[in-house]
Amino acid sequence: MSTRINRQIQLRARPEGFPSEADFRLVETPVPEPGAGELLIRTIYLSLDPYMRGRMNAGPSYAAPAELGGVMTGGTVGQVAASRHGGFAEGDLVLAGAGWQEYGLSDGHGVRKLDPGAAPISTALGVLGMPGLTAYVGLLEVGELKAGDVVVVSAASGAVGAVAGQIAKIKGHRVVGVAGARKKCDYVVDELGFDACVSHRSDTLADDLKAACPDGIDLYFENVGGKVFDAVLGQLNSFARVPVCGRIASYNATSLPDGPDRIPQLMGLALVRRLMIRGFIVFDHAHLEPDFRRDVGGWIRSGTLKYREDVVDGLDNAVGAFLGLLRGENFGKLLVRVSDDPTR
Amino acid sequence: MSTRINRQIQLRARPEGFPSEADFRLVETPVPEPGAGELLIRTIYLSLDPYMRGRMNAGPSYAAPAELGGVMTGGTVGQVAASRHGGFAEGDLVLAGAGWQEYGLSDGHGVRKLDPGAAPISTALGVLGMPGLTAYVGLLEVGELKAGDVVVVSAASGAVGAVAGQIAKIKGHRVVGVAGARKKCDYVVDELGFDACVSHRSDTLADDLKAACPDGIDLYFENVGGKVFDAVLGQLNSFARVPVCGRIASYNATSLPDGPDRIPQLMGLALVRRLMIRGFIVFDHAHLEPDFRRDVGGWIRSGTLKYREDVVDGLDNAVGAFLGLLRGENFGKLLVRVSDDPTR
Repeated sequence: MSTRINRQIQLRARPEGFPSEADFRLVETPVPEPGAGELLIRTIYLSLDPYMRGRMNAGPSYAAPAELGGVMTGGTVGQVAASRHGGFAEGDLVLAGAGWQEYGLSDGHGVRKLDPGAAPISTALGVLGMPGLTAYVGLLEVGELKAGDVVVVSAASGAVGAVAGQIAKIKGHRVVGVAGARKKCDYVVDELGFDACVSHRSDTLADDLKAACPDGIDLYFENVGGKVFDAVLGQLNSFARVPVCGRIASYNATSLPDGPDRIPQLMGLALVRRLMIRGFIVFDHAHLEPDFRRDVGGWIRSGTLKYREDVVDGLDNAVGAFLGLLRGENFGKLLVRVSDDPTR
Repeated sequence: MSTRINRQIQLRARPEGFPSEADFRLVETPVPEPGAGELLIRTIYLSLDPYMRGRMNAGPSYAAPAELGGVMTGGTVGQVAASRHGGFAEGDLVLAGAGWQEYGLSDGHGVRKLDPGAAPISTALGVLGMPGLTAYVGLLEVGELKAGDVVVVSAASGAVGAVAGQIAKIKGHRVVGVAGARKKCDYVVDELGFDACVSHRSDTLADDLKAACPDGIDLYFENVGGKVFDAVLGQLNSFARVPVCGRIASYNATSLPDGPDRIPQLMGLALVRRLMIRGFIVFDHAHLEPDFRRDVGGWIRSGTLKYREDVVDGLDNAVGAFLGLLRGENFGKLLVRVSDDPTR
């Protein structure tokens, strides 16, 4: 086995602003042998997510940065290729965090077996995984969803937004999405069942939003920041809540926008309208995972909740796909198929 | 009775920026006669509070603006001078909202009898009234005070801040105040028992705060905004909460500060540190009033919780005292003694 090759994508440089292919490096190393208590996992699907841009930066965040010269971190679905771990056998399908590589070693920590009969294994990285749970906790716990709320979700066709908006629809709310391309907006309304979807590319975004939310906005599920946040802000009703899940519009910014400094305006609105703004990270809300599996798992099985995957083939294409994700080019949950899915 | 004179202070003009004496007008009108179901209240104490600056503006807020040519609104403690209301008798001491005038008519709505044996009647406008309840709900409910929290309170010697900080001390927290004058900082530490107090007039405010909170800040009770907020922001720990009670540093601003626009910075911090920012108005939390009376009433009676009143004599001096409040010149809960307190 030691002669087999493991291809991996390492972080070569920390980007200033928008990353480029040159910030990554594809390296070939020998496939490692599992030691006692370890298992070797062959990656089938690698998840690509906006949070990974943050891991490319140095400095403190809610998680340690990726190491320069280290493998890019990431969630994966794979198959156990060899095991010296009592809990896993060769052939087991597992959810893991093997990163951007073809093979990963693990001590079993955080690895979970998947039942391919319950749902397609790829969904463990999307609608039934971290992004789905993010949507669930962001809407229900952090966002304090209440009867009658008008809900706006940005990045509405994305892995998180699509689930957040559909949950709100299932619970009977008026739900308006914000997306970019026309085809995404159409999908959000026609396939996912949102009441409306406006494009952040429109010159009349604030007016479009106002037309779609004539009674104002009670809950804004924030995934993007920037001009979408600005357009939403003035239309938030008293007691509105803003769970802050992501701010992809700012992830590659190298400076702040020109003034004036609108912090006093934001805080003034927060006071007068009793707004609640709360940032969150899904890992802090793991206690909701059983509820999430019951609810979202049930809605998936019944066909009530839909999902769309954007699958790119081959680790060679991971960097390009990730850069496209940062430009909003993916359409649905972005996955890299690193090796064949034996269940399909 | 109709020949008696009622002096009242009306709003003459809506100020641009910092108000002046000329924005108010002292008017003499006949003392009104109560009709059926009404009572006439002689004002003893008028409460002056920062929120009144907001009422001087036109435009929507959480409460209707004061009318041009109308009496300035405000909480009062008074004595029933005449009653045609079954619930009140002449001589009753009451908490009311008669505004900036010597006599006010009421239909009894929102009027509450006071027991002068339980506590000095002036405290119904301060530590046992709206400001005290504001501190209680802001700290415990909105601020979600948790064991181990390091608490920072701005306007720490003020009517709200002094109570908020003392409650946090009683509950065992490290509490750091922010105030202006040296004598206020000394009072906050020496009399109220805060662990430390820093001055917002210091050129090294952020460093002073850091020295006082070496482990960071978990709950910031926001009363002022401006540079105090800026100094606190960088020192908020993960999961910190910011109940936004007031922003007195901005109430008289006529424009936003120069750029850059730091909203993306604030929202980025909110995400990475999972901050919670929540504006609140005390009226929305009336359900906590019984708990507040039990707790804070008990602490007042036992001498555990201290308070300080800054009493100005005469309605003639109300405008000057209010302008001083906006400049931070009061020291303790600001009251105007409009007529003699019969209980003292």
